[in-house]
Amino acid sequence: MTDLKRLLQQVIDGNIDAEEAERIIREANAPPVANLGFAQLDLERERRTGFPEVIFAEGKTSEQLLAIFERLTQSLDRVLATRVTPEKAALVTASVTNVTYHEAARALTWFRKPIAHEREGYVAVVCAGTSDVPVAEEAALTLECFGSHVERIYDVGVAGIHRLFARLDLIRGASVIIVAAGMEGALASVVGGLVDKPIVAVPTSVGYGASFGGLSALLTMLNSCAPGVSVVNIDNGFGAGYNAALIHKQIAKRE
Amino acid sequence: MTDLKRLLQQVIDGNIDAEEAERIIREANAPPVANLGFAQLDLERERRTGFPEVIFAEGKTSEQLLAIFERLTQSLDRVLATRVTPEKAALVTASVTNVTYHEAARALTWFRKPIAHEREGYVAVVCAGTSDVPVAEEAALTLECFGSHVERIYDVGVAGIHRLFARLDLIRGASVIIVAAGMEGALASVVGGLVDKPIVAVPTSVGYGASFGGLSALLTMLNSCAPGVSVVNIDNGFGAGYNAALIHKQIAKRE
Amino acid sequence: MTDLKRLLQQVIDGNIDAEEAERIIREANAPPVANLGFAQLDLERERRTGFPEVIFAEGKTSEQLLAIFERLTQSLDRVLATRVTPEKAALVTASVTNVTYHEAARALTWFRKPIAHEREGYVAVVCAGTSDVPVAEEAALTLECFGSHVERIYDVGVAGIHRLFARLDLIRGASVIIVAAGMEGALASVVGGLVDKPIVAVPTSVGYGASFGGLSALLTMLNSCAPGVSVVNIDNGFGAGYNAALIHKQIAKRE
Amino acid sequence: MTDLKRLLQQVIDGNIDAEEAERIIREANAPPVANLGFAQLDLERERRTGFPEVIFAEGKTSEQLLAIFERLTQSLDRVLATRVTPEKAALVTASVTNVTYHEAARALTWFRKPIAHEREGYVAVVCAGTSDVPVAEEAALTLECFGSHVERIYDVGVAGIHRLFARLDLIRGASVIIVAAGMEGALASVVGGLVDKPIVAVPTSVGYGASFGGLSALLTMLNSCAPGVSVVNIDNGFGAGYNAALIHKQIAKRE
Amino acid sequence: MTDLKRLLQQVIDGNIDAEEAERIIREANAPPVANLGFAQLDLERERRTGFPEVIFAEGKTSEQLLAIFERLTQSLDRVLATRVTPEKAALVTASVTNVTYHEAARALTWFRKPIAHEREGYVAVVCAGTSDVPVAEEAALTLECFGSHVERIYDVGVAGIHRLFARLDLIRGASVIIVAAGMEGALASVVGGLVDKPIVAVPTSVGYGASFGGLSALLTMLNSCAPGVSVVNIDNGFGAGYNAALIHKQIAKRE
Amino acid sequence: MTDLKRLLQQVIDGNIDAEEAERIIREANAPPVANLGFAQLDLERERRTGFPEVIFAEGKTSEQLLAIFERLTQSLDRVLATRVTPEKAALVTASVTNVTYHEAARALTWFRKPIAHEREGYVAVVCAGTSDVPVAEEAALTLECFGSHVERIYDVGVAGIHRLFARLDLIRGASVIIVAAGMEGALASVVGGLVDKPIVAVPTSVGYGASFGGLSALLTMLNSCAPGVSVVNIDNGFGAGYNAALIHKQIAKRE
Amino acid sequence: MTDLKRLLQQVIDGNIDAEEAERIIREANAPPVANLGFAQLDLERERRTGFPEVIFAEGKTSEQLLAIFERLTQSLDRVLATRVTPEKAALVTASVTNVTYHEAARALTWFRKPIAHEREGYVAVVCAGTSDVPVAEEAALTLECFGSHVERIYDVGVAGIHRLFARLDLIRGASVIIVAAGMEGALASVVGGLVDKPIVAVPTSVGYGASFGGLSALLTMLNSCAPGVSVVNIDNGFGAGYNAALIHKQIAKRE
Amino acid sequence: MTDLKRLLQQVIDGNIDAEEAERIIREANAPPVANLGFAQLDLERERRTGFPEVIFAEGKTSEQLLAIFERLTQSLDRVLATRVTPEKAALVTASVTNVTYHEAARALTWFRKPIAHEREGYVAVVCAGTSDVPVAEEAALTLECFGSHVERIYDVGVAGIHRLFARLDLIRGASVIIVAAGMEGALASVVGGLVDKPIVAVPTSVGYGASFGGLSALLTMLNSCAPGVSVVNIDNGFGAGYNAALIHKQIAKRE
Repeated sequence: MTDLKRLLQQVIDGNIDAEEAERIIREANAPPVANLGFAQLDLERERRTGFPEVIFAEGKTSEQLLAIFERLTQSLDRVLATRVTPEKAALVTASVTNVTYHEAARALTWFRKPIAHEREGYVAVVCAGTSDVPVAEEAALTLECFGSHVERIYDVGVAGIHRLFARLDLIRGASVIIVAAGMEGALASVVGGLVDKPIVAVPTSVGYGASFGGLSALLTMLNSCAPGVSVVNIDNGFGAGYNAALIHKQIAKRE
Repeated sequence: MTDLKRLLQQVIDGNIDAEEAERIIREANAPPVANLGFAQLDLERERRTGFPEVIFAEGKTSEQLLAIFERLTQSLDRVLATRVTPEKAALVTASVTNVTYHEAARALTWFRKPIAHEREGYVAVVCAGTSDVPVAEEAALTLECFGSHVERIYDVGVAGIHRLFARLDLIRGASVIIVAAGMEGALASVVGGLVDKPIVAVPTSVGYGASFGGLSALLTMLNSCAPGVSVVNIDNGFGAGYNAALIHKQIAKRE
Repeated sequence: MTDLKRLLQQVIDGNIDAEEAERIIREANAPPVANLGFAQLDLERERRTGFPEVIFAEGKTSEQLLAIFERLTQSLDRVLATRVTPEKAALVTASVTNVTYHEAARALTWFRKPIAHEREGYVAVVCAGTSDVPVAEEAALTLECFGSHVERIYDVGVAGIHRLFARLDLIRGASVIIVAAGMEGALASVVGGLVDKPIVAVPTSVGYGASFGGLSALLTMLNSCAPGVSVVNIDNGFGAGYNAALIHKQIAKRE
Repeated sequence: MTDLKRLLQQVIDGNIDAEEAERIIREANAPPVANLGFAQLDLERERRTGFPEVIFAEGKTSEQLLAIFERLTQSLDRVLATRVTPEKAALVTASVTNVTYHEAARALTWFRKPIAHEREGYVAVVCAGTSDVPVAEEAALTLECFGSHVERIYDVGVAGIHRLFARLDLIRGASVIIVAAGMEGALASVVGGLVDKPIVAVPTSVGYGASFGGLSALLTMLNSCAPGVSVVNIDNGFGAGYNAALIHKQIAKRE
Repeated sequence: MTDLKRLLQQVIDGNIDAEEAERIIREANAPPVANLGFAQLDLERERRTGFPEVIFAEGKTSEQLLAIFERLTQSLDRVLATRVTPEKAALVTASVTNVTYHEAARALTWFRKPIAHEREGYVAVVCAGTSDVPVAEEAALTLECFGSHVERIYDVGVAGIHRLFARLDLIRGASVIIVAAGMEGALASVVGGLVDKPIVAVPTSVGYGASFGGLSALLTMLNSCAPGVSVVNIDNGFGAGYNAALIHKQIAKRE
Repeated sequence: MTDLKRLLQQVIDGNIDAEEAERIIREANAPPVANLGFAQLDLERERRTGFPEVIFAEGKTSEQLLAIFERLTQSLDRVLATRVTPEKAALVTASVTNVTYHEAARALTWFRKPIAHEREGYVAVVCAGTSDVPVAEEAALTLECFGSHVERIYDVGVAGIHRLFARLDLIRGASVIIVAAGMEGALASVVGGLVDKPIVAVPTSVGYGASFGGLSALLTMLNSCAPGVSVVNIDNGFGAGYNAALIHKQIAKRE
Repeated sequence: MTDLKRLLQQVIDGNIDAEEAERIIREANAPPVANLGFAQLDLERERRTGFPEVIFAEGKTSEQLLAIFERLTQSLDRVLATRVTPEKAALVTASVTNVTYHEAARALTWFRKPIAHEREGYVAVVCAGTSDVPVAEEAALTLECFGSHVERIYDVGVAGIHRLFARLDLIRGASVIIVAAGMEGALASVVGGLVDKPIVAVPTSVGYGASFGGLSALLTMLNSCAPGVSVVNIDNGFGAGYNAALIHKQIAKRE
Repeated sequence: MTDLKRLLQQVIDGNIDAEEAERIIREANAPPVANLGFAQLDLERERRTGFPEVIFAEGKTSEQLLAIFERLTQSLDRVLATRVTPEKAALVTASVTNVTYHEAARALTWFRKPIAHEREGYVAVVCAGTSDVPVAEEAALTLECFGSHVERIYDVGVAGIHRLFARLDLIRGASVIIVAAGMEGALASVVGGLVDKPIVAVPTSVGYGASFGGLSALLTMLNSCAPGVSVVNIDNGFGAGYNAALIHKQIAKRE
């Protein structure tokens, strides 16, 4: 907005007339958007919210996904697409160079230059069972894509709680902790009672019957008796990773 | 039913005629019921199901409660009434001698002769927080009323899991374990992963917001990843105690 | 922990130095886990909880199932995998010798030595209709796998209650009773009013419309007016069998 | 509508002109309504639907209830008001002569002439527990008010199923059967499997925890495996009685 | 039970000894059941509940369906199977002679002798839209199978209420009325306000979004402000037909 | 924004320097808000959204309500507060002159000058039963407060549909129609099939049992088979009135 | 109805006798319906409700769709079918001339004469994300089919709210605004706070996990703190378009 | 654990014998708990989880609250009790010196020494409406109690979004942002799209009808299309504050 003063000075100096100045001021408030008709790509999201726009591929046609992916590679330094089926992924990897498909995380990534861990410390991604791994991987990949180092601690659910205690030092050393769990989702509360770090809990839809598609784990995590736990949507590994990255970035910024 | 053969022999011997015999056979199949009009008291439930009828006072008027309580003291050796408000309790204790009101458990008991622990071993009643104590006490009192020794292990929720570990030997030594917990109810799963005894889990309505009156804890317990856990209704301390007593009685019977 | 005193004596005797002693003490608290990366197999679960780890195949890839199955056959005497589709089963039976696929129960079993009924008495597995049989079979197989004798009483729902009464003596003679029922799930309450044994009720997802995937039967069983009934998750035949086995084992231990 | 032909004849005969005839035809289609401003009383409901309008007192002020009650006594031969609190009842009984308040049924009745059982046979009103009596009484009173004889069979829930069998002949002899039950509501299915008469099931809100205000009993009854069962709203004793009266009236009409 | 007196006389007369008499009495209480292992066919249901056992094909394998169907044709005069897919139907029609598949109703029927309308009057089967026809047809076929004449009044939903009024005389003339409707299910209330006959309402799962699989129509019907309406499960055309048949049979019996 | 050009001209003319111009431009984008600490009153809402801010009194203390009410009378020409209990109303009417409490609508109004019907035509406010009147009155009062003429058509529910037909011409003549109904809420669909005007449906919480606090009526209205119906929140008479006023105002604007 | 007076005059004049007159009067009240057996087509809906009957293709067979579509082209000037799969569309376009399939909107249209924008002004159709486009297109097509001009403003969700502000003038200029949004559906509230036009909000089923098939967006919109918002069913683009068309038509009628 | 090496050295040196060493090692693993019978106070929670145990007063009797509060003042430097009614607060403030009751936040605090802002930067606590203030205040007080500076930005809901934009710089400057909102809860998503800081969203139970006690706002926040948002339980101001404090502490630790 120091730009504004400079502009007004130009008006005063007679270099720009009032009408032109008005148009410039208006446009300055309209941030760049790439208009694809069916999509308005938010090109300055990174400046505004800390990380660039990410493509949620579910509900988009392969053609839409490809068009958005290609357009973003022109403007951004890194592109992440989540919830990508192998079929959609095949189309994108065939059309765009240097795209990687991460099968376990069901995600595509593209980087203008090699990815680097941009900050000190790490985020611990903990999951309760083998079936929770895809959600955990989505979180981990999101973190790595946004520059955080990740430590994976998988299959340490409370049915065999010694598996958790065996890895507790690694969990405690993290700046932020993500806990992904389905079924009854008790793992988040247990970890919450043992650490002094913020926990982002992500319920998964793993389970059957009265798990009601992840509702059980979601309610468990929301009602956690251990207070350091906040929650994202069921199966939202991306959201958990994004949250943790925002926190981690804050911590590192001050270093 | 060896009675039936004896009866038929009497018919053969001419001591009883056919019409009388028919009447006797019919009545023999109609077990004794005390008819109070608004209630049909099931006087032989103990013989059939192992323990006598218990009065659920909620939804009954003080007068109905009193009438049922008095009638049962005539036929049974022990009477238990649950969900009794102090007001209703005052009426009963004023009218029936030797009745005790257990305020914490919100229950009334009456015994023809002093209560005794009728079997070896004990049942552990574990609860997560101070607010779960009324439900835990209802379970404990039911067990004691039906002849089991009880060990109470209260306020050992997973937010401070070392409190649980400190009492683990006592819990592991039980024949059956009851776990009462509200909020996210994770305690049942954690205990379930640490012991080799059957667990009867009772969710409580302790909590607020997304605990939805105990639904959260109920779903947690039903989805427990530790398999030794079965569940009763929300706040159903009586049901948990009754279940545990049935199991404990079975174990002791063989001793 | 008498081991601890012995260790300390060795330290006193100078056979072990302090650093080495510290390492030994730490490791002694870490029970054996088989690390497959995507899974941490809990090899000592049988010692801790009474029965060995069981594989829940749903949500695992065929490759993960096979790897876990094979690894467990190395360390355990019996391996049970539930929720196994015929496709996954085919892969395992082709790769591991002596594995049996139980189609009705959708389960795989493997035994180092022939299975034996390890204890006296039996568990009654009762189901309401033909469509509930798969869940009942999962329960029955789990029980047999863990050494209990099972009596199957199938298709005796309350729409024709005489079918139940005709089998009542067999049900009453059991140490524990499992009742599987879908639709309105009333069978559990009816049996509960007729026996003096603990009942583990398992609601099934059989039904349509307002059965809401088993919710109706689940609520019925949780609200049973007959108090000897506890409940496991919808379609959780394994959990019902495991619970009953834990109880049955307790009863037999004392014999 | 033979009236219409007569009217047209009068037009032909010149006794009525066309404009007047049009007005008469229009009004003939507008059945009599008593307009109280806040209420439009449907005075011809009996002719149209078989029974007169009944006052649902809940949500109406005492003044509204009184005004409606008084107005109906002018036009109808019998007036029934349900869901009447003792306070509201006191106002009406003080103002209108010959009104009776039925406390157990929470209902007011008024009859121009003494009530009579208008038809042969009877309706059986069955309820599971003492706490279900108010709903059962509302049903029974509605039936009696509409001219059916009622047999009450109370407190015969499935926890002591012999109490039901002891009364089965009386239940089987009815033209229609109403079954009121709370908690798990299994009684409707059990009765449904034993009789050849239509059953109107009314779930009650009796229960706690996972009964969710009667939802559990409602779902049980909707999913009944015995097919002769239809269901009305939770606690809707009036609706059950009305339904049964409609059926009973049909049966008797042919006698 | 006059049989009992005769039996006892034979015992008195020395024709039967006590042991044999006991066996006879016991068996007399065990009604005939055809045991197929996975199914206990209730052969005397017609005598007990008015109509014979009906096969619910959903959740049964083709082999189970065929075995049950064949067995019932040996003992019953009419066999009805509902929820039969075309694939399952093909197997049965290929194996059993004289079986008819009703595609619209998704049902199979078999009759020992030609079907006849066994009673006077008729049942009106009304449905709101074209998509509700399969449920309506299941109800109509059930009625016809059990001897009632049916009048079908289809696609008369409240969005064009004049279509209903045009058919009102036919509806009013019925002994019982079935109303099938999905979406908001308002048709049942509207019909209920216009007739003096009992209505069995059957909500259908027709709709999308906030119809939640028929829940919306179900709640509408349960909360009907017109009192003559009782309700069966979502999509339960069979249950509605069975109910109506029970009522219709009662009415006709007295004729 | 022609202001902007003028401002820039002043900058060019040297009457305003750049810094001052920047400040003016920033403030011009900050619309007037009255800051009460606990509340930020939106004083320009009328200009932006067509009608001024309305006070929702529920959840506010009497003191907060009074402070907000007083402050708004200083800046606005009309003030409306909804969901006002008689106790809160008494405080406001005692402190502010010319305030009227509308008991049936539970609302307070204040006008700087006498209220006038500001536009041609009228809005029909229709309700199903006497208990729905408070919600209907809230809608009607909101409309009158915002300058629309209202016609009230109350107690015309579908149980006596002729009451509706008797008033149909009045309903059809409206510019917009509001339909308030509880229980099963069928009235909205029926009206929707009979008129060519937009309907704003407002479900009420009138009912019991499976009405689930208005959920039944809400779902009915959302699933209406008559397409001209849109819906607001349960009991949201204000929202319905506001919507209808917005539509009515649009229609009149063009006149 | 002036026809009625004319008819009566003919009766008076002796040209028509009373019986014939009665028949004519009755039929005059029965509006034209095209009876296809499985469907009663409401041919005069346009006169009664403003727009002609629209075909909801979901749940109808291809044959039923085709038969209805063909029949309507005979009587109406424009035919719209929604929820048409490409397979069903292919059948109709092959059989009926001049039918267009709109793939994005999943709808078929047919016009007797070219479509024209029948009224001034326009409706703004706003959607939050690319995945919401099909629902938005269904709304837009419905509007265009019924004669309204539409402005599409797509992919302007609140995650990048500047995209909305950039299009705000276009939105504000509309007569009515439709807002389609899935996930959390916040867009409707935000737009509602910025405009003085009625908003018809349509929640979409876009999302996963705790969006529960659109329930989240539905509740958001029903609870909107901005009062100018009314809501239609989840994914009901047609209903939103129809509503907006009804409003728009009203506004234009007065022009 | 360097203590362990030192201890072992003492054993080697003969200063401590093996038995004593074993006892010391065991006790070292049992952290200090204050046993009040009904409560096991977790005295070392601060060391383990970053902040000391906080008292949740709901569901505890006044006596229990007082006893716990007093005991904690002996061991801790600061005591916080939430969900304290004025009645319970009066008892505590009368008995314990230097206790402050915060009425708006419904909380009690006690500090051994004056509270200080322990770290740089601040947390922004934003709420949507006046009725959300109690929840926001609970969050703010928790933060202040744990040493964070708080900026309060209240009543800036999306119905008047310019109120939010006017305070955006203050919000953007925070280290962490808490957003409390009821009704539709859209504020969290809107803020999430505008900032680059982690947001802890807390849904409130403010609202009525289809807000279902805060469920609507909860689902909105879980489904937020802006990814930087994580969620705590409904009305859980404490949990939001605790979470934000954990994050803020991490950020400051590195400074």
